[in-house]
Amino acid sequence: MELKVYHCPPTRSVRIVWALEELGLPYETKRVALDREYFKTPEWRAISPTGKVPVFYDGDRALVESVAITHYLSEKYAGGRLSRRPTDADYGEFLQWIHYGEAGMGPYAGMLIGQTRLLPENQRIEAMKVWALGECKNACGFIENSLGDRPCILGADFSLADISLGYMLHLIRLSGESKSIFGPKTAEYYRRLTGRPAWIKATQ
Amino acid sequence: MELKVYHCPPTRSVRIVWALEELGLPYETKRVALDREYFKTPEWRAISPTGKVPVFYDGDRALVESVAITHYLSEKYAGGRLSRRPTDADYGEFLQWIHYGEAGMGPYAGMLIGQTRLLPENQRIEAMKVWALGECKNACGFIENSLGDRPCILGADFSLADISLGYMLHLIRLSGESKSIFGPKTAEYYRRLTGRPAWIKATQ
Repeated sequence: MELKVYHCPPTRSVRIVWALEELGLPYETKRVALDREYFKTPEWRAISPTGKVPVFYDGDRALVESVAITHYLSEKYAGGRLSRRPTDADYGEFLQWIHYGEAGMGPYAGMLIGQTRLLPENQRIEAMKVWALGECKNACGFIENSLGDRPCILGADFSLADISLGYMLHLIRLSGESKSIFGPKTAEYYRRLTGRPAWIKATQ
Repeated sequence: MELKVYHCPPTRSVRIVWALEELGLPYETKRVALDREYFKTPEWRAISPTGKVPVFYDGDRALVESVAITHYLSEKYAGGRLSRRPTDADYGEFLQWIHYGEAGMGPYAGMLIGQTRLLPENQRIEAMKVWALGECKNACGFIENSLGDRPCILGADFSLADISLGYMLHLIRLSGESKSIFGPKTAEYYRRLTGRPAWIKATQ
């Protein structure tokens, strides 16, 4: 096993390192600076097939998509720990949430950060911020309703679904708008997730 | 088994019906009109926990996220057909592509359609169209390079990865910009996918 992550916090490489730490797998990180000019160079394009971060290597094979990589690590190298089996009662919810934490929420969390932090003020568009706020509130309402009194999104046990969602809640937190977006259960859930040693290691 | 899809072509419900048809599973569709006002009503919110389309029911349990649902159907009801096992050589690529077809491409294909078709002309922003075009070209370059001479993204055999990507290529096609975005192999791939009977059934 020779697992390597090009790691660039606070990008989605956090999810991969977080999963590796939670699963207790041996791995190597290559630190990469968040440098959009470097990401256009032939040198980086030879490492990352999309030119983006993160990229992960299992031996000499590159893989992209952070949530897919966490699922791959669990199923291929950790006997399915932190995942669910098709025979488990919550298998459908497991798949739903690992996808929702990126596919369902990523476009809006990305737009929100763009309109609050990343873009220069004179390039921001108020209507896009309003749209992103509404969609992030809707998504976090879905999480809030689904959490109920459970510590993790699938119930008692921490899973890859929490890694997928936790990172996305972090992006919303970075926007500076989370107080108006997170419900009380979601805010507590976020605090629990970001108190985990594996999260702290992944974001250092 | 009581599988039901709230079906609203050309939204992502197409992926679910496409997978159900390819897997030969019995299912029911409820046709829903693409009506953003209806999607805000309590009646629809009682059906869809996010207020979006599609939503899928297995008995009385609702699931969202179209790609997750196709994976669920294959693993739970079709013995993993059109999916891959952790012991398969292309398991990592399988997971990568099912996620990439939504998480990696969806934000940009969505932006592209918004800026070319959905938004009124006086609300469009040229810089966003340029950005979306560049990102869609980058994503389709990744697909083009990965296809090589293979008929499907994982090689000879059609899989859920093709369903994930094929729908996203369709969104790009709907933008009217696919001629400048699809490489020649991607254009042929798209033609092959949309010639499949299950695709035709799903988009009717």
